[in-house]
Amino acid sequence: MNTQTTTEFAPILVADIGGTNARFALITDFNAQTNQFVIEHNLTFPSADFGSLESAINQYFSQISFPKPSRACLAVAGPIKAGQVHLTNLGWHFNVADLKAEFSFEQLEVINDFAAFAYAAPYLDDSQNMAVKAGQADENANIAVMGPGTGFGAACLVRTSQGSAVLSCEAGHITLAAVTELDRLLITELKKQLNHVSVETVFSGPGIAHLYGAMAAVKGVEAKNLDAAQISELATTGQCEVCDATLNQFCDWIGSVAGDLALTFGALGGVFIGGGILPRMQQRLLSSRFVERFADKGIMSQYTSQIPVTLVTQDNIPFIGAAACIHVKSNA
Amino acid sequence: MNTQTTTEFAPILVADIGGTNARFALITDFNAQTNQFVIEHNLTFPSADFGSLESAINQYFSQISFPKPSRACLAVAGPIKAGQVHLTNLGWHFNVADLKAEFSFEQLEVINDFAAFAYAAPYLDDSQNMAVKAGQADENANIAVMGPGTGFGAACLVRTSQGSAVLSCEAGHITLAAVTELDRLLITELKKQLNHVSVETVFSGPGIAHLYGAMAAVKGVEAKNLDAAQISELATTGQCEVCDATLNQFCDWIGSVAGDLALTFGALGGVFIGGGILPRMQQRLLSSRFVERFADKGIMSQYTSQIPVTLVTQDNIPFIGAAACIHVKSNA
Repeated sequence: MNTQTTTEFAPILVADIGGTNARFALITDFNAQTNQFVIEHNLTFPSADFGSLESAINQYFSQISFPKPSRACLAVAGPIKAGQVHLTNLGWHFNVADLKAEFSFEQLEVINDFAAFAYAAPYLDDSQNMAVKAGQADENANIAVMGPGTGFGAACLVRTSQGSAVLSCEAGHITLAAVTELDRLLITELKKQLNHVSVETVFSGPGIAHLYGAMAAVKGVEAKNLDAAQISELATTGQCEVCDATLNQFCDWIGSVAGDLALTFGALGGVFIGGGILPRMQQRLLSSRFVERFADKGIMSQYTSQIPVTLVTQDNIPFIGAAACIHVKSNA
Repeated sequence: MNTQTTTEFAPILVADIGGTNARFALITDFNAQTNQFVIEHNLTFPSADFGSLESAINQYFSQISFPKPSRACLAVAGPIKAGQVHLTNLGWHFNVADLKAEFSFEQLEVINDFAAFAYAAPYLDDSQNMAVKAGQADENANIAVMGPGTGFGAACLVRTSQGSAVLSCEAGHITLAAVTELDRLLITELKKQLNHVSVETVFSGPGIAHLYGAMAAVKGVEAKNLDAAQISELATTGQCEVCDATLNQFCDWIGSVAGDLALTFGALGGVFIGGGILPRMQQRLLSSRFVERFADKGIMSQYTSQIPVTLVTQDNIPFIGAAACIHVKSNA
């Protein structure tokens, strides 16, 4: 029987399970004043040290001196299909119901990393993140999250008077649209090598290399065999004009992509951009045409103009999102 | 006190409020075997006969001999913002909370017409609709709804193990992407007249006229001043080759647009297309490249291939959606 008062917070085990690291923490409280979760007992293990998720969780519990919580949410870098999770890089496989039974959790949720980002969005710390575009967020409306990394991820926190839910999706794979004449020329070049020019074929780590190749062709320059890190290095040090133009175009064009996703997700609650790439090009993003291209949507330009866009650089997003997933459901 | 057994269905007032007609009905039961709502006491009034929504509702209640229900859901052809609804064409304005109090409803929801379509999607009658594309719907996954009419509407029924909600959006206003060389040539022509070539600038009634103009330019033919109805008539009677090519391109290209929306909405639960235009060109749609273009998404072609697409021609979608909105919430 639960004899706690309703004001007492039942701790939540949260985890961020990736191919490299398995990170665990306990959410021990929620501060309604600051709208922040209290994250404690944060431990990181190399994922490859464990043969299964279960053994990693057991290792975590053995290292903290805290009663095992009855609620848990795991953010995993991979798809969850009908309660089954395969983390192919690690060879880990688990079933959500079996895991729940094994650890006697009263509540267990498993969500993917961009779903966690969407759940986390209302609980971020403004002081740790960067406003890319000013606006007026509707606090009851949908929030879009997105970002280029290994691929292009996106999700939406849907909030209506009838209920809320997180939409997980494959938005990175839609056909990339051209807005400017340069966009069009670049897509024409990309099509020479790629069957389908999707958003992700440009807006991702490997995509930067594709975009560089196309930019070189448009400029009539011979492309070198460079990866994203090399392109970024040569652009930043001023050693390669094509690399510089590539990253500028990347920052400009992603504004149009983000504006389209804001429209498709009805994201009057705001857009949050993250992932591995954009936090490393903050100044370039700020001096780019991102804001102009985000808003440039014909008769809907007023709609997109009012939406704030935030670059998320704070750590612990998967922990916050996992906590929010449980917290929102418990307080529904 | 409610002395009804839990198996007894509390009736729901449903309405479909448009600029031309205000339609009302009572949902008197839900048949779990057929997954269908029982719709009775259907009455249609000319909207312009009334000075307010309240007077139309009173007229409905005065004409039916049935106790006033305690639950109601209204589908309106317009935006709902912070509980305020303005139906500008009719000069009607109402506040959801005030309306709820005035009619002593225990529960009142007001949703827009595409949100109603999304709520209705799991409760449609297969025998009344047409499979455009075969597939295997995941019954627990998101469902996308969309369709060209006066504009291009879209919405998503988000279904996850953590909850469900309907996403309303402005997806018709995203930038239209070119997939084929003909698409690209048409967009180039459209750009000569339009600042922003959105999905809706082609996929709507007025859009068909835009597309016809661009098609004539691409074919080097002088365009006549034709509206969508005239283009359709001339195409169907074989009197205008450009009109025929326009409608074929419309059916082909909307396959690519629908495929992108399916990816952005993660719609493994299926795609339902409706609206005023496509039901009138069923045979052309079936013989078009819609299915091929829907699935043609590079490395995600397997994902889109499995998604079934249904053309919704059955009547009463707003009633079914309004009923489902209340029913789902009551049974959550």
